[in-house]
Amino acid sequence: MGVAPALVRLNNGNFCCYLCKTNMFRLDCSMEPTEGIENYLELTLREQQLIPDGGRVLVAVSGGMDSVCLLYSLLALTKAGYDFSLMAAHVDHGLRPESGADAQFVAQLCAELGIECYVKHVDVQALATQRKQGLEEVGREVRREFLQVVAERESCDRIALAHHRDDQAETVLFRIARGCALSGLAAMRWENGLFIRPFLAASRQQIEEYIQRHAISYVEDASNASVVYARNRLRHQVLPALCSINPEVAARLAQLAQVAALEESYWQQQVATVVQRGASWVGSVLHLDCGAVAQEHSALLARVIRECLRLARGNLSGIEAKHIALVLTLLADGRPQRQLSLPRVWVARRYGQLLFSACPPATCDNFHLTIAEPGRFPLPGGRVLCVTVAELAQGDSGVLGSWGNWVEFDASQVRFPLWVRSVQHGDSMNCVGMVGRKKIKKIFAEKKLTLEQRALSLVLGFDNELLWLLGVRRCGSYMVQSDTSIVLRCTIVPAPD
Amino acid sequence: MGVAPALVRLNNGNFCCYLCKTNMFRLDCSMEPTEGIENYLELTLREQQLIPDGGRVLVAVSGGMDSVCLLYSLLALTKAGYDFSLMAAHVDHGLRPESGADAQFVAQLCAELGIECYVKHVDVQALATQRKQGLEEVGREVRREFLQVVAERESCDRIALAHHRDDQAETVLFRIARGCALSGLAAMRWENGLFIRPFLAASRQQIEEYIQRHAISYVEDASNASVVYARNRLRHQVLPALCSINPEVAARLAQLAQVAALEESYWQQQVATVVQRGASWVGSVLHLDCGAVAQEHSALLARVIRECLRLARGNLSGIEAKHIALVLTLLADGRPQRQLSLPRVWVARRYGQLLFSACPPATCDNFHLTIAEPGRFPLPGGRVLCVTVAELAQGDSGVLGSWGNWVEFDASQVRFPLWVRSVQHGDSMNCVGMVGRKKIKKIFAEKKLTLEQRALSLVLGFDNELLWLLGVRRCGSYMVQSDTSIVLRCTIVPAPD
Repeated sequence: MGVAPALVRLNNGNFCCYLCKTNMFRLDCSMEPTEGIENYLELTLREQQLIPDGGRVLVAVSGGMDSVCLLYSLLALTKAGYDFSLMAAHVDHGLRPESGADAQFVAQLCAELGIECYVKHVDVQALATQRKQGLEEVGREVRREFLQVVAERESCDRIALAHHRDDQAETVLFRIARGCALSGLAAMRWENGLFIRPFLAASRQQIEEYIQRHAISYVEDASNASVVYARNRLRHQVLPALCSINPEVAARLAQLAQVAALEESYWQQQVATVVQRGASWVGSVLHLDCGAVAQEHSALLARVIRECLRLARGNLSGIEAKHIALVLTLLADGRPQRQLSLPRVWVARRYGQLLFSACPPATCDNFHLTIAEPGRFPLPGGRVLCVTVAELAQGDSGVLGSWGNWVEFDASQVRFPLWVRSVQHGDSMNCVGMVGRKKIKKIFAEKKLTLEQRALSLVLGFDNELLWLLGVRRCGSYMVQSDTSIVLRCTIVPAPD
Repeated sequence: MGVAPALVRLNNGNFCCYLCKTNMFRLDCSMEPTEGIENYLELTLREQQLIPDGGRVLVAVSGGMDSVCLLYSLLALTKAGYDFSLMAAHVDHGLRPESGADAQFVAQLCAELGIECYVKHVDVQALATQRKQGLEEVGREVRREFLQVVAERESCDRIALAHHRDDQAETVLFRIARGCALSGLAAMRWENGLFIRPFLAASRQQIEEYIQRHAISYVEDASNASVVYARNRLRHQVLPALCSINPEVAARLAQLAQVAALEESYWQQQVATVVQRGASWVGSVLHLDCGAVAQEHSALLARVIRECLRLARGNLSGIEAKHIALVLTLLADGRPQRQLSLPRVWVARRYGQLLFSACPPATCDNFHLTIAEPGRFPLPGGRVLCVTVAELAQGDSGVLGSWGNWVEFDASQVRFPLWVRSVQHGDSMNCVGMVGRKKIKKIFAEKKLTLEQRALSLVLGFDNELLWLLGVRRCGSYMVQSDTSIVLRCTIVPAPD
């Protein structure tokens, strides 16, 4: 059509991207929205409410049969007066010699149809090597990123993908083959963020019929002819064999996905109720109250655990059924403190709580600090110890000799240098109100400190004497008396949240 | 071993059945429960609690590798001191020339192992023709019946089937191919009534290894070599192709089944809660209160509908997703009275209720009865009309001229013969307290009678005059007055429940 594509260079992170924007003009379209796929499409857009009135739709066009059919049939609906407008986008992955020609084909087609089109050339091979990812994965990421960039730039309301019912069937089978929970069976959705899949209930055959009836040109996707890839193995071996058992198998698989998606939304609702009731964040650690979930059905409990793992890690990749089962043993097991290192997540039972965290908790092994004079001293875990000398006592915090953020000693008896160090095996101290010494380990157990609290515990002392198990218990000596004239005061400033 | 089988003839319905009961004696078993499948079995029996202490287990032995392996490995556990005892049973389907030899093999094997064995010969082909069912279906039914008969006769606590993980994978795939809801993915269970499947998590390979290591004899199942049947197509085409995508696919499919079974039990619990709250039986019709379920998630609602259909029909065979969707439209639709004829079940919306019934409700079209004198007259729907003449009035039942089971007229004005007939299009009557006539149809609507109540409605009259819309409304004439000397009294005796 003699349209000179305007090349625009976008700066998009690590790699260059060229935009070929065809001029906008309209051609008459000979099709009426009265047949097969167009009727289907019109019904689907209405039933699934995929496009808002007056919406702008960006169609992802590979140049293959499915996406070309989607472009033509959506265009036919706009010609018939449906209230939305179209744009197109194409990504050339540069993986096949003919990929440049495919891009040219799409640009030319859109020019002929009067549809504005963005084309991007990416060296997916180089990018995959650089990112150490698979070609397919990188290709998908690049496409998605580009489509979203264009959609935002052009204020598109929706991005239309041409996945159809047979793709959905393959996706379901692929997930089954790879191994998935029931939620995975939901496979592709009608709508996912900006992305919509108007063809999700249309068969490949419907699409082929439309393409043939209108003698529409498209490019062959070379990978379709090969059985190298899993998806093609599914398409050319598994699905035909299943079809010989039930010719309707693709429809049944797509239906299974639809039921799974519906039931998934129920599960999410049920799980959210339990999580809201039983789980809470303490800093970056998710705490799940064991008592609050103990009565739940084990199926729901397993899903709640999955959700807690998702919340703690950000996603569930690499999490398998056996990991969920391990976490469930923490719940069932009577032992008060156990922990698991699962892929990219740390899970622990701490008395009545299950803890989920992306990082194992901080410890302060082998910490040692000498305090030669009053001042502020940073401690592991973001805490700060303030040591001051004053004439007036304020009294210890908390119950006498017990939990609290500060303590006071008679400074005439306790002298610098003091020291602060990690708790060591066998540490003991003489406590207020008792004869003899008590092991630190026993104090930990009495106070039901979690292993994390124990690992972060420090002791303050001078000479060979333990004065204070920081924040937990003080020794019974060197108390401030009525005749104390000078007071040594130690205060912990907790880490900011 | 020279054991003469004792032939016993059982009378079991339509077909003869022979029991071959070998004598009981014990042989030493050279195997120790220390390896592969035996360890697996020991762990499984304990974890899944499949056999009670001291239990008697009937093993279904086809003579094929799997069931022979199950027999040997269970026997090894009893030899090693595990507290249960074994029996065996075999059904010869008579479908292959060598099937008699297979039965002989199993009888001989059991005799050698000192395991009591029942053998039954059935002409499955003839039975399938007679019952108009498939060979596979009839074969399964015959086996199950026989196993249950033997189990009862011999007081067995469990019937052990040799289905393994790869069978489970095939079953899941088969159900997916045929089309199923998520509940169908649960496939075979560890336990189902008396039946247990101890090998459900064992692979075919584990079984093969055991058989080979001990050079155990078994018979080849000829159908295994053919790809004629769906199951064999799955085994020889679909599963190998899926294995090339993921070598662990059988384990993943079995795991999917296990998760589905667990989640299914949660769904059953959720559905039962809603059904208990919202549904009740009125005679043989299940009523579901629309208001009580209106707020439920549509996934749960769909399952509640399925359960109501199951309760009304007895099972769900032939019920598909589209049928559930149709019932849901009755709920969503604002119209007060609509009905559906689904396969073997009648479903109707009647104002605030959804009705489910195995049979469409009774009607009394074209009923006509002439009443020449007082007496008792049977009416459609099991009701009886009593007509009496008395000197003393008792007054009409219900509100004046409205709903009630009896009415009284001044017998000096209303004379025999009376008649009772179905309501006809256009019927009207003059009602108490109003001028002019009111259409029966309007009375139906005012009273919000269901279509079933309307279809069972009758009118009593004499000459061309309607006296009473039975049980609903009387006419405004022929009232009993203070000077009435003789009373015509009509009473409906309702149908017994």
